[in-house]
Amino acid sequence: MGYEALIDRLLKGDTRAAARLITIVENDIASAEEIINAIYKHTGKAYILGITGAPGSGKSTLISTLTTIFVKEGKKVGIICVDPTSPLTGGALLGDRIRMKKHFTTDNVFIRSMANRGQLGGLARATEDIIKILDVYGCDIVIIETVGVGQSEVDIFRSAQSVLVLLVPEMGDDIQAIKAGIMEITDIFIVNKMDLPGADRKVSEIMQMLELSINFKYDYENINQGNAKVRKWTPKIVKVNSKTGENFGNLLEIINEHRSYLEETGVIENYHLKRIRNETLQILKHKLTKKVEELLHSNSQIDEYIRLVMDKSMDPYSMANLIIQLLGIE
Amino acid sequence: MGYEALIDRLLKGDTRAAARLITIVENDIASAEEIINAIYKHTGKAYILGITGAPGSGKSTLISTLTTIFVKEGKKVGIICVDPTSPLTGGALLGDRIRMKKHFTTDNVFIRSMANRGQLGGLARATEDIIKILDVYGCDIVIIETVGVGQSEVDIFRSAQSVLVLLVPEMGDDIQAIKAGIMEITDIFIVNKMDLPGADRKVSEIMQMLELSINFKYDYENINQGNAKVRKWTPKIVKVNSKTGENFGNLLEIINEHRSYLEETGVIENYHLKRIRNETLQILKHKLTKKVEELLHSNSQIDEYIRLVMDKSMDPYSMANLIIQLLGIE
Repeated sequence: MGYEALIDRLLKGDTRAAARLITIVENDIASAEEIINAIYKHTGKAYILGITGAPGSGKSTLISTLTTIFVKEGKKVGIICVDPTSPLTGGALLGDRIRMKKHFTTDNVFIRSMANRGQLGGLARATEDIIKILDVYGCDIVIIETVGVGQSEVDIFRSAQSVLVLLVPEMGDDIQAIKAGIMEITDIFIVNKMDLPGADRKVSEIMQMLELSINFKYDYENINQGNAKVRKWTPKIVKVNSKTGENFGNLLEIINEHRSYLEETGVIENYHLKRIRNETLQILKHKLTKKVEELLHSNSQIDEYIRLVMDKSMDPYSMANLIIQLLGIE
Repeated sequence: MGYEALIDRLLKGDTRAAARLITIVENDIASAEEIINAIYKHTGKAYILGITGAPGSGKSTLISTLTTIFVKEGKKVGIICVDPTSPLTGGALLGDRIRMKKHFTTDNVFIRSMANRGQLGGLARATEDIIKILDVYGCDIVIIETVGVGQSEVDIFRSAQSVLVLLVPEMGDDIQAIKAGIMEITDIFIVNKMDLPGADRKVSEIMQMLELSINFKYDYENINQGNAKVRKWTPKIVKVNSKTGENFGNLLEIINEHRSYLEETGVIENYHLKRIRNETLQILKHKLTKKVEELLHSNSQIDEYIRLVMDKSMDPYSMANLIIQLLGIE
């Protein structure tokens, strides 16, 4: 009801309209539905980078340096900082955000922190909706930054065309710290702070891990009809120094190489398919949970079931099965 | 299929059977259903304490000291360490667990770390099932320890009769760090490291926060039929020193006072009701998500929807609504 004016302004690249709409989709799924319904046909222009790394790996500096380059190339950049473990570590991220904001007084960079806010409506669902708003707002690149620890972050990264994982020589266990599910969908490994001793050892560790890995990102057999085989993408490793910008030319080349790979092989189709499936799943999870919660509080049959469970005549799993029947699902 | 032997041993207090069954319910919801179905009628003896606090607040030392007292009283204690942000902080918790284990070579203490393992099947669902196993195993007290940051921890604490939050004088922002949802269900605030300067200031801060709070744990009007009013529990604050054991007599008295309060007022009925509702919701979430995931990968109608979304003729929210219709839910 009445987001037309805001959406019109968004389509013209109005920054305040973008900020306002993001707040709305974060907080209210019914409004999110209405807004996404209206803007979906305008999406699809932004290239989405997912960047993760343990606290202290230098994510913010890397993103600042990358963004500076993108802006110089004339691109508009959106940055979404997601931290599902906030508020505990939220302070750090927010501090970084403020530092980042100082770098960019330009209209070409839009930074948004999500902290805990989106959690009620599902963090992955909200992030996906915000990406769409930034896309329609006119961003050429959308960067999603996470700390790489939760299941929701794996879900979030299904929205990214290229997934970048940041590691540093000094941390002995940062490879273990990044959630396994993220490692499996990583396209580019970045060893930051390449000037520190141990950078080459870190590269070897990653190579070792890749050799052991039997999981690959794409279901290649499903990509081309007619059983045509598609070449695989082997995750690339690049050393950089985010503070000095050393080797960023190399990093950008690899990002572009991955982007071309997706387009030329048609793997991008597979990405779209998986992204839509994941998005729909997140929306459904949210809607079904809401429905079940309502049922649990209003249906008189349920009160009787609860009574039986309290008396130990029935266990909660059996009650769940009866409710699935009540919902009419076989 | 065939957990009868293990369950028989569990009922006799066999430690290895308990450990084995816990691993099973953590990893497989279908087996969990079968096991809980068989043991549910034997549950209900354990008193469940939820304990949370930021990293560094001294949770492990507090739990060690508490457990020593409970064991001296002849009680059997189960401890479940939950850390949804693991593996990043998992190292610390596991280290603590090893330290704790050294204290207790007795058969009367059972310690289990969950780290990330239970996440696939839902952390709150798995924790609830483990509580039941420890209950049937013969634990008089089950302690659930979390770091207090995620939504799943709020869900987990709905299983606890008494919720204890640990704060320390030296941390300026630990009140802010604990998730708001947990504060609202806290029964006892513990200021640890009472020997440090600022302990009294911390107590004042908590009191101030409680005065501002308008949220209370129980829906009192629903407890007694016939509109009888029930006295409210005002969260208590207690200062302790976990290392020396100072004031633990006081803490135990308050825990017992809360336990009596629940029983005498009948508020315990309300706790059971909410716990069962929450448990069932967690099980349903898991089952419905699985059902939707299967549908998304197998139904031919869905492929057509996805094609429409890829062509931007339909948005993901509309697709979710069509799937809800496919599931037969109005």
